[in-house]
Amino acid sequence: MIRLLLFLPAALALAIPLAAQEGHASGTHGGSATLLWIAVVLVAAKVSGLVERLGQPAVLGELVVGVVLGNLALAGLDVFEPAKADPILRFLAELGVIILLFQIGLESNLAQLRKVGVRALAVAIVGVVCPFALGTWVVGPYLLPGLSFNGYLFVGAALTATSVGITARVFRDLGTLHTPEAQIVLGAAVIDDVMGLIILAVVSAIVTAGTVTMGAVGLIVLKAVGFLVLAVAVGQLLAPRMGQLLSRLHTGTGMKFTLAISFALLFSYAAGLIGLAPIVGAFAAGLVLDPVHFHNFDEPGMVRDLRAELARAGTASSIQMDDLLRRHSHRHVEDLVEPLGFFLVPIFFVLTGMSVSLEALFDLPVLLVALGITAIGVAGKVVSGLAAGSANRWVVGWGMVPRGEVGLIFATMGKQLGVLPEEEFAVIVIVVILTTLMTPPILSSLLRRNSAAPA
Amino acid sequence: MIRLLLFLPAALALAIPLAAQEGHASGTHGGSATLLWIAVVLVAAKVSGLVERLGQPAVLGELVVGVVLGNLALAGLDVFEPAKADPILRFLAELGVIILLFQIGLESNLAQLRKVGVRALAVAIVGVVCPFALGTWVVGPYLLPGLSFNGYLFVGAALTATSVGITARVFRDLGTLHTPEAQIVLGAAVIDDVMGLIILAVVSAIVTAGTVTMGAVGLIVLKAVGFLVLAVAVGQLLAPRMGQLLSRLHTGTGMKFTLAISFALLFSYAAGLIGLAPIVGAFAAGLVLDPVHFHNFDEPGMVRDLRAELARAGTASSIQMDDLLRRHSHRHVEDLVEPLGFFLVPIFFVLTGMSVSLEALFDLPVLLVALGITAIGVAGKVVSGLAAGSANRWVVGWGMVPRGEVGLIFATMGKQLGVLPEEEFAVIVIVVILTTLMTPPILSSLLRRNSAAPA
Repeated sequence: MIRLLLFLPAALALAIPLAAQEGHASGTHGGSATLLWIAVVLVAAKVSGLVERLGQPAVLGELVVGVVLGNLALAGLDVFEPAKADPILRFLAELGVIILLFQIGLESNLAQLRKVGVRALAVAIVGVVCPFALGTWVVGPYLLPGLSFNGYLFVGAALTATSVGITARVFRDLGTLHTPEAQIVLGAAVIDDVMGLIILAVVSAIVTAGTVTMGAVGLIVLKAVGFLVLAVAVGQLLAPRMGQLLSRLHTGTGMKFTLAISFALLFSYAAGLIGLAPIVGAFAAGLVLDPVHFHNFDEPGMVRDLRAELARAGTASSIQMDDLLRRHSHRHVEDLVEPLGFFLVPIFFVLTGMSVSLEALFDLPVLLVALGITAIGVAGKVVSGLAAGSANRWVVGWGMVPRGEVGLIFATMGKQLGVLPEEEFAVIVIVVILTTLMTPPILSSLLRRNSAAPA
Repeated sequence: MIRLLLFLPAALALAIPLAAQEGHASGTHGGSATLLWIAVVLVAAKVSGLVERLGQPAVLGELVVGVVLGNLALAGLDVFEPAKADPILRFLAELGVIILLFQIGLESNLAQLRKVGVRALAVAIVGVVCPFALGTWVVGPYLLPGLSFNGYLFVGAALTATSVGITARVFRDLGTLHTPEAQIVLGAAVIDDVMGLIILAVVSAIVTAGTVTMGAVGLIVLKAVGFLVLAVAVGQLLAPRMGQLLSRLHTGTGMKFTLAISFALLFSYAAGLIGLAPIVGAFAAGLVLDPVHFHNFDEPGMVRDLRAELARAGTASSIQMDDLLRRHSHRHVEDLVEPLGFFLVPIFFVLTGMSVSLEALFDLPVLLVALGITAIGVAGKVVSGLAAGSANRWVVGWGMVPRGEVGLIFATMGKQLGVLPEEEFAVIVIVVILTTLMTPPILSSLLRRNSAAPA
């Protein structure tokens, strides 16, 4: 193990002076440093899997290794600074979280989600109203005195966000994606994103125009809700037809893969157009796609051959054989998407870690204020678990805690509009960092306790 | 089928006004048009698979659909213009050809390649010397009168390039990657890239400094040959050790995939640093990685379960069972890389097609000159097949014909140095287009004839 821990820094030490030289490379092609960054991020993410030995979900390791790489500049090593700003790496990270939510959508299904729909809505509403009210009227005025009311509006709005990526990865890492708790959190996070969109529009309108019309709010609500309803309806209608049409052209794994990925990309793009997070579209695409849409693409010869082979060998345990066939005879769409996930998903989490600036934690007064707001921000989300009915309330409540990049978008918008000064912006950044990093270990310990003694 | 052909334009017609609006999208996220472009490119590539019904390799369809999309502006539809310039799409395309050559490297092996080494070297030398001599002293002065000698040097240099991507895809599409012909072409293309690097450096030095020292040439040769030798040596030494070390951390498909892809990316990056095409590095990475390096990662439980299951069912045909096990019990590294190939490789070929500007073909005098140079450029490469010994000389010769992006790099450099005027540059572009587009149909018909009546 020690040899391994020595190996990674040695490899980096070797590669990085080369990367620095890159500008001087001449010849027909020239090196693309992005290739190196991707390799470093992927290997670092896998090495960080060591945290699993400590009983932590892999996603925590990826976040922490990202924080370390992103803050090496504090130790005088600024080699990773260009990686942080690399637009291609950023895009791959965005694609990574799209693929993750698409995978999670594929593993979920609409019926399961509908069963928890009312509870998810209740959790989402409590999880938005409490942090917003606490942020705007309590935390803001007491912990950040001297800001305008508009400033407090943005503090409250930033606390309402839920970053579903982190939570979904923890559920997935621990194999608990099918529990009612996970489904409630997924549903609530999607609803939360819709509500976040509305809040952002309203708050921005109040700050810029001083007022907001009910008509404008209604339009945003209509667009967002309309998108989700339409996405699911059109998807369910279109998927089998597209499958039929395209399977006439080609069968085989390539077509299956292309159809699935194109669906995910188009839905993500459409969600982005409406102003929703692209991941909401990706999740919807995964929900409407069902293995049944892909049966046209399986190479019948292969399945038949394997079946005949097994039949010849004896029919001893036909149920187990069927299961084996199902698992091994052809490649499921989930299996095809998985390697793309191996490639892209760690990039998202390592880059999320890299965007965490530890420097923000060095200013003690700022840090203390941030800790106070974090405590209240966590409390506001954890109480939303109370609305989860018979499900484990702690798991649902903590599942809603991470703010991730969505909280940062609110804070950035507030800064751009001039209502959040630099220092208050730093506070929100710390809150986002802490809620994001504290959730994986806490949630995984709650989940373990939950499975040991079900409520 | 007609319904399908109507479906694609309809879907595009729907998506594209949305894409155009994208700049106006507001909200928390905003749409990323790149997501849409990727989906359009992937679906278009798969629809273009129709050419397989005409007995053509799929890569021709991808190139042609790219040419159509890239030249819709001629029909007044400029919606794809932003896609052409999208830097992320370009990077994904580069990554696509890296993955393709890595896959081809994985499917090849060093022993096989060594067997054809001498012939590959001979083919590469003839395939560089003939087009260069013809371009510089014959074609240039006769067909492009009035240029400086330096200009002719660049015409000759541009004709020496071989774009291995196109040829490798044709061999792969037709399942003939393991024939001696394919191995000779692969080997020759790698050597060709090294020679191209040297030629470019020498020609550039002559144009800019008026002279070139043997020392400088020697250094480039040493770097390029050194890279290849070192890559293979270090790779063979490192791969099993890294495999052992990393498998202590994690087993399973995720680690297997990450190790393979990181290897490919690091080798590609290193090749780029030296000035070689990154794909040469990716091919070398694929060559040194062997399934045996990955056996540590197979989940032993899964294989054991399946084996026990099959044993219980009867041991009737144990050899076939072993084969089944091998094929189905765990996921081979090639299978893991394949979906990434499905995702990225079509982007490369469609984008290559999109970069073809049909407008260049509209100027009759330019076109005629280009046709003449194309004929001679093709002849110069086809004769290199004579050096292929007992292998099918036509297949090898035509395999060396496509110039692809490497020829364009030469031409662009000549234009930047001021020795190739706009019109002569356009001529070289047409030559590159024609050699690239004519190769897939011709090569596939030669390959079919070859397999029908082996020489």
